[in-house]
Amino acid sequence: MIIDHILPHSWKIIEDEYNPNRVEAAESIFSLGNGAMGQRANFEEQYTGATFQGSYVAGVYYPDKTKVGWWKNGYPEYFAKVLNAPNWIGIDLKCNNQIVDINTVKVHRFHRELNMQNGLYTRTVTLTTTDNVKLTLTAERFLAMFQEELGCIRYSVELHNKDAVISLSPYIDAHIKNKDTNWDDPFWKCTSQYADANFAALHTKTNKSNFDVCTYQAVSFTVDGERFEAYSCDEEKGRITFSCQAKLTRGQKIRVEKMGGYCSSLQQPASIQQKHVKIIATHAQEKGFDELLKMQKKHWDDVWRMADITIEGDVKAQQGIRFNIFHLNQTYTGNNPLLNIGPKGFTGEKYGGSTYWDTEAYCFPFYMATKNKSVAENLLNYRHKHLEKAIENAGKLGFTNGAALYPMVTMNGEECHNEWEITFEEIHRNAAIAYAIYSHECYTGNSDYLVAKGIDVLVGVSRFWVQRISFSTQKEKYVILGVTGPNEYENNVNNNWYTNYAAKWCLEYTVSKLAIIASKNAHVYETIEQRLLVKEEELVHWKEIAKNMYLPYDAKHDVFLQHDGFLDKELHDTSHIPLQQRPINQHWSWDRILRSPYIKQADVLQGFYFFEDHFSKEQLEKNFDFYEPFTVHESSLSPSIHCVLAAALGRVEQAYAFYLRTSRLDLDDYNAEVNEGLHITSMAGTWLSVVEGFGGMRVKNDAIHFAPQLPTAWDSFSFKVNFRGSVLQLTVSKTSSKVTLIDGNEVNVFVNGEKVSFFQEHTILNN
Amino acid sequence: MIIDHILPHSWKIIEDEYNPNRVEAAESIFSLGNGAMGQRANFEEQYTGATFQGSYVAGVYYPDKTKVGWWKNGYPEYFAKVLNAPNWIGIDLKCNNQIVDINTVKVHRFHRELNMQNGLYTRTVTLTTTDNVKLTLTAERFLAMFQEELGCIRYSVELHNKDAVISLSPYIDAHIKNKDTNWDDPFWKCTSQYADANFAALHTKTNKSNFDVCTYQAVSFTVDGERFEAYSCDEEKGRITFSCQAKLTRGQKIRVEKMGGYCSSLQQPASIQQKHVKIIATHAQEKGFDELLKMQKKHWDDVWRMADITIEGDVKAQQGIRFNIFHLNQTYTGNNPLLNIGPKGFTGEKYGGSTYWDTEAYCFPFYMATKNKSVAENLLNYRHKHLEKAIENAGKLGFTNGAALYPMVTMNGEECHNEWEITFEEIHRNAAIAYAIYSHECYTGNSDYLVAKGIDVLVGVSRFWVQRISFSTQKEKYVILGVTGPNEYENNVNNNWYTNYAAKWCLEYTVSKLAIIASKNAHVYETIEQRLLVKEEELVHWKEIAKNMYLPYDAKHDVFLQHDGFLDKELHDTSHIPLQQRPINQHWSWDRILRSPYIKQADVLQGFYFFEDHFSKEQLEKNFDFYEPFTVHESSLSPSIHCVLAAALGRVEQAYAFYLRTSRLDLDDYNAEVNEGLHITSMAGTWLSVVEGFGGMRVKNDAIHFAPQLPTAWDSFSFKVNFRGSVLQLTVSKTSSKVTLIDGNEVNVFVNGEKVSFFQEHTILNN
Repeated sequence: MIIDHILPHSWKIIEDEYNPNRVEAAESIFSLGNGAMGQRANFEEQYTGATFQGSYVAGVYYPDKTKVGWWKNGYPEYFAKVLNAPNWIGIDLKCNNQIVDINTVKVHRFHRELNMQNGLYTRTVTLTTTDNVKLTLTAERFLAMFQEELGCIRYSVELHNKDAVISLSPYIDAHIKNKDTNWDDPFWKCTSQYADANFAALHTKTNKSNFDVCTYQAVSFTVDGERFEAYSCDEEKGRITFSCQAKLTRGQKIRVEKMGGYCSSLQQPASIQQKHVKIIATHAQEKGFDELLKMQKKHWDDVWRMADITIEGDVKAQQGIRFNIFHLNQTYTGNNPLLNIGPKGFTGEKYGGSTYWDTEAYCFPFYMATKNKSVAENLLNYRHKHLEKAIENAGKLGFTNGAALYPMVTMNGEECHNEWEITFEEIHRNAAIAYAIYSHECYTGNSDYLVAKGIDVLVGVSRFWVQRISFSTQKEKYVILGVTGPNEYENNVNNNWYTNYAAKWCLEYTVSKLAIIASKNAHVYETIEQRLLVKEEELVHWKEIAKNMYLPYDAKHDVFLQHDGFLDKELHDTSHIPLQQRPINQHWSWDRILRSPYIKQADVLQGFYFFEDHFSKEQLEKNFDFYEPFTVHESSLSPSIHCVLAAALGRVEQAYAFYLRTSRLDLDDYNAEVNEGLHITSMAGTWLSVVEGFGGMRVKNDAIHFAPQLPTAWDSFSFKVNFRGSVLQLTVSKTSSKVTLIDGNEVNVFVNGEKVSFFQEHTILNN
Repeated sequence: MIIDHILPHSWKIIEDEYNPNRVEAAESIFSLGNGAMGQRANFEEQYTGATFQGSYVAGVYYPDKTKVGWWKNGYPEYFAKVLNAPNWIGIDLKCNNQIVDINTVKVHRFHRELNMQNGLYTRTVTLTTTDNVKLTLTAERFLAMFQEELGCIRYSVELHNKDAVISLSPYIDAHIKNKDTNWDDPFWKCTSQYADANFAALHTKTNKSNFDVCTYQAVSFTVDGERFEAYSCDEEKGRITFSCQAKLTRGQKIRVEKMGGYCSSLQQPASIQQKHVKIIATHAQEKGFDELLKMQKKHWDDVWRMADITIEGDVKAQQGIRFNIFHLNQTYTGNNPLLNIGPKGFTGEKYGGSTYWDTEAYCFPFYMATKNKSVAENLLNYRHKHLEKAIENAGKLGFTNGAALYPMVTMNGEECHNEWEITFEEIHRNAAIAYAIYSHECYTGNSDYLVAKGIDVLVGVSRFWVQRISFSTQKEKYVILGVTGPNEYENNVNNNWYTNYAAKWCLEYTVSKLAIIASKNAHVYETIEQRLLVKEEELVHWKEIAKNMYLPYDAKHDVFLQHDGFLDKELHDTSHIPLQQRPINQHWSWDRILRSPYIKQADVLQGFYFFEDHFSKEQLEKNFDFYEPFTVHESSLSPSIHCVLAAALGRVEQAYAFYLRTSRLDLDDYNAEVNEGLHITSMAGTWLSVVEGFGGMRVKNDAIHFAPQLPTAWDSFSFKVNFRGSVLQLTVSKTSSKVTLIDGNEVNVFVNGEKVSFFQEHTILNN
C-alpha cells in the first residue's frame, strides 16, 4: 500500500497536515544527519502522542548482551548496538503555565518541509491552546555539514488572538531510553555537567564501551527581535534547562536560537570536549542562525553540484531520487575511516551495527562516483582496519592460518549478528568486500590501495575460501556446503552458484594480482610475501581449486542453478501467491518460505550484475527470465539490481517498473515500516538504477561507457560522475543523449560503444 | 571423562565422601519422584555451597514468554516451562544458636545412599561445628508411591562429645527461584496460608497458567524416642516454620518426622486441597515413618517383580540398569493421561516441556512391556487428547484440512520450542507418534485403541504428510524438502531418508487400517468417515504418493542416503576428530558441524530399527557399516539403538560397547552435565539395549521372539516382560537360555526362531 502523504516538489519534502498516526513515519522521513550525528524529526516540545525518540552519535555503540533462544558455539557474547544519545534538541513550551502538547491542542495548520538544497527542516504549527490562546510555533533546524559537532535550532512562538505568558525552556537531557535493547540495560551514565549564563554541557559515558560524549547547548532569546535576557538555569542530575518566560501581547513573537549537538571521544578526548564545543557554540552564536544557514547552503550547493540527478517530466521521480541522494550524503561523508553506512543511518536503531555487505555491494559505487577519492578509500580502509578482527572472527569458527571472515553486521569489526544460518553461513559477504577492491581498482585505474593494503584483505579472504571449500569425490569438483546466499529465503544450501562463482573469482583475482605485483615490483612482492607468508604452493593450490570449482548448471533450462536441489521445488511463479499473503515474510512460517521457490532478492542475478562481462547477453536473458518470476523482492536491495539488468537487456519499461519500487520506497512507505527508520543503503540502489540502469554506465578497459535509455514517463534525465579526475555529465532527453566534460581533462568515454570526442560537444541522436 | 564417584552395589547408589564440587551432580543422581511430584536431593538444612535447588509438581507449568534473538513467523509467543515449586523438604538446623552448614563445618564422614528396593534415600553426616560440637545428622526421605501427595522425612541429630542446644526448624517456603527462566518472571504467587499445632499449608497459584498448588508439612518431634511438644510456629508471608529447641546432653538424639508434599489442581480443586492433604498427613502420622516405609517397600517389590533386570558377574552393569529402571518408574507411573515423561523427569528443569518424541520412540516399549496395559494406553491417550492442538499447530504453519503436526516439545499440546530448523522442520516426530500406535497394536494384538482413537491421530498425521510432501518434476517422485532428521547435525536438508520412509509408511499404514476397518465393520467405518471426513479420492491420492515416494539411495555404496547431498561431504570417519575436540557440539561452530559428515544419533539406522522387517540383514549390515563410523553419538539416545542393531547383526561385543555408553551415562557422568539433571528418556534406551539387544526380543506375527546373546563380561542376565496377559522371563547364562512362563496362559514364544513349548521348561543350550 502506498501512502500518499508527502507532497510532490522537486527540491522539498513536504507534509501539510497533522496526522497523529503518521508522526513516527514522518520522524524518520524528516531525519537530519551530518555524518557525525543525527536524529529523527522528533518535536522539540513535549508530545504525548506516539513518537519514537532517537538521536545518534556516529560510531558510538553499546555492546549489548546477546539475546538468543538456543545458543550455538561461535555466537558473539556481546555485540555493538547503535544507541539513542542524550537529547540536545528539546525545548519545553508553555503557554500561561500550561504545557503545549500538539497531541492535546486544536491544530489549525501543521506544515513541515525539508529543503534538500540547504538541509533546513522547518515545522510550522498554528494551534489553539486549551485556554484559547491561538499561536503559531515555528521550528527550524539543521545540522551543520561544515562543522560536525554543530546543530542549529531557531524556535519561535507568535501570539494571534490574545495576550499570554509564554515560556520557552531549551534543555539537554541524558535520561533517555533505547528502543532496541535486549535486556533493558542502562546504556549511559552521566559523569559530570556544567552550566554558565547561556551555555550548558552534559558529560556522559557509555557503559562497557566507555565512549565519552559531551552534549551541549548554547541559547539566546529574543522578543520581537530584541535580546531578552531574563531567563534562568535549572540544573538537575543529567539535565540542564534554561527557562525564559515572557508576558507577550497579541502579535508579539518570542524566539530562541539554540546551538547544540555532540562532541564524542571519536572526535576529541573527554578532557577537552567541553572547551571544544564551547568555542564552536560561541562562534556559532556570533554568526547567528541566518549566517550559519548560508554556510550550510554553500556546502549543500557543492554536494548537489556533483551528486544531483535531474529528472524532467516526473516531479515525484525527481523528488525521490534527490531524497535518496540527500540522505546518503547526510549519513556518510567519508571523513572518518572508523565510520560506515548504517542500514538506518541516523534515522532509527533497528538491526544494530552500522555495516553490512550493503556498503560494498550497493553503496560503494555511489560514493566512488560522486565524492572525492578519499571517501571511497575510507570505505576500503574501514575493512582493512578490521582485518585482524575478521581473522579472529574466522578463528572462532575454526579457521586458521590467517583466514578472514568479515562479520555479517558490525560496528567495530566484531560480529553483531547471531542467526547461525546468516552469521556462520552467509559468507558471500566476504566476496563483496573483495569485489569492492576490484571495483575501486577498475574505476580509478589505480592499484596503489590494492598493492599497499587491499592485497592483505584479498589474501585473508582467499584463505577463508580455501578452507571453507571442500572436495566432493562424488562430483569430482570443489564444492561449498552449507551456505546462505544473497537470497536469504534459502538457508544452509549446498553450492549456491553466486557464492561458488564469487569465491572462484576471488581466488583467481587474488592470484592474478599477486602475479602482477611480483612481475612489476619484485621488492614490493617480497614485503607482501614476508608480511602475509604467502607461498608459491599455496597459490598453486588456489588456482587448482578455482579451476575445478563446481558451478551448478541445468542443461534443460540452460541456466545456472541457484543451488543444488533448486529444481526439486514446485516451480510456481509469484503470481501463485495470494495478494493478501504478501509480503510472504510477514505471513508464512519460515519452513514454508524455505521450501518455496520464492527468492527474496537477486542471487544468481546478483552474480550477473557483478560479473556481467563474464557472460553473454543471451545467458543474462535466460537467467533473468528464469529467476525473476520467482522473485518477491522482499529485500529493498533487490529491485535496483533487477532495474540495472533489465536495462542492460534493453527492457527500459521493465527497468522503470523496478525503479518505481526502489526510488520512493520510504517516501511512499511501500513496506509500511518507515516509522522504524529509512532504508539508507537501498537508497544507493536507486542511484545505481539511474546511473547504471538508465544511464548504462560501466567502467571497463580504462574507459567509461554509457548506454542511455529514457523511460517514457520522463522527458529527460541527467547526472554527473567523477571519473579519474574529470567530471562528466550525461544528459538524456527524448531526442538525444549528450556527454559533457564539466571539469578536468579528457577521458575515454564511449556512448553506446562509440568513442566520444570532447573537442566538440558530443550529442547522439536517439533512434 | 568418567567420574568414578558412585560406589558399586547391586541395589544401592552410594556416595561415601563429601566433595563440594560434586554436590550438584549428586543432587541429580539421588533425586526422588513418585510420578506426581519429585525433587532433587537438596539438603534439608541450609547449605551455602554450590547447589541447584529444585522441587517439581507433575504437569504444573508456567507459560514463559519466548526468548529469541530473531523472531520467525510461527514461533510460539509463550511456552510451557517446568517450574521449581515451593520447598516442602526444608529443615533448618542450629547448634548452640549457630546455623549448621556443611559447607563451613568440619565433615568427618559423609555418606548417602539410595536404596532402590524401597526408594529410601538416606544421608548421614558426622561433623564438628565451629564451636566444637561433634554431631551426626541423619536424614531419611522417600516419596510415597502408594499415595502421590505424600513425602516422608525423618531427620535426626545425635550429639557425640558434649552438651549443646539443638534446634530443628522444619518449614515450607514459597520464596523460591527458577533456574530456567527466560525473563526472571515470578512464576508463583502466594494466595493464602494456614497453620495449626503441627500442620501447615501454603496455597500458591502459578502466574498465567493458574495452577493451584497446596504445599504442606506435618511435624512431630522426639528426643531419645520420647515425644517432645515444646515447639513454636513462626509464620510469615509465604513461609511457615515450626521450631523446636532442646538442650541435649552428650549421646542424646533429637528427631523430627516430617510428612509433606503437594496437592495440585490436577489432583484436587483448590478449595479442598488443604483438607485433602491434612487427612493424608494425619493418617501418615498415625502410621509413622517405619510403617509407611514398609508400604513403600511393598510397592517397589511389585515394581521390581515385573521390571527388574538381573545381570550377574558385573555389579556396575547391574547397578546401572537398576538405576535406570528405578528412575523410569519414579518419573512416570502412567496413572494420569495428562502427564508424560520429561527429559529430566523430576531431576532438573532444563529443556522446558515434558514431552518429546523420545516418549514414543524410546520409552513406549519399556512401559508397554513392564507395566499394566493402561499405562501404555495412557501414553497414547496423551497424544490423542492433544490432537486438536496439533491441528492448530499445523495451522500456524499454513497447513489446513485437519493436518496435524505434533509439537517438538510440549506440556499441554502447545509447542514449547523455537528453533526454526527443529520446531518447523524436525517433523519426523509425527511419524514416531504414528509408529507408537502401530507398535501398540502389534505388541498387544489388539486394535481397540486404534479403531476408537488412534485412527484420528493417524489421519491427522497423514494429512500433514500429504500437504508437506511435494512433487519434483525433476525426479518425477514425491519429495520432502527442508527437514531436519533425527540426526540434528544436519538442518534443512532435502529428502531425509528416514523422514521420507516413515512418511510413506505412515500413509500406507493408515490407508491399510482404514481398509481393514471398512471391511470388518462398516458401521464403525461410517462413523470414522463422518467424524474425519475421509473420502475415497483422498485415500487414492495418499496411496499414489506413498507408492511414488522418493527414497534416496546410492548404488555405489549400496546404502540409503541420509539425505540429498550427503555424499558431497568429505567422508572422514570419527577417528579424524581430535579427542580434545569431542564432543564436537561443545567445540565446533554450528556451520562446521553441519557440513561435516558427523552424525549426532541414528538416522538412517533409526529407520532400520523401526522397520527392521522391511529390510534384509545384508542391507542392515551395509548401512550400519557405512553410517556408524560417522556417528559421534552426542545424543544420549544414539548408543542404545546402535546396541540393538549391532546385536541383531550378531555382533554382541560391539553391542556391549554401545551398551556401556548408555547404561551408566548419568552415574558416571560421561557428558559432565549430570548436575543439570538426569537423562530420563535415554534410560529407556538402556532397557531396550538389554531386552531388544541382548535379549533379541521382537514381537511379530502374533508371537514374541527372543534371540539371546550374552556379552562375555556377564555371567548371566534375566528380565521379564508382560505379553498379552502373561508374564515371561528370559534367563540367559553362559551355557543356556531359558524362557519361563511366570504368570498367565501360554503365548506364542520363539527363541532363535524355534517355537517354545511351556509344557516342559524350555532351555536352549548356547552354541
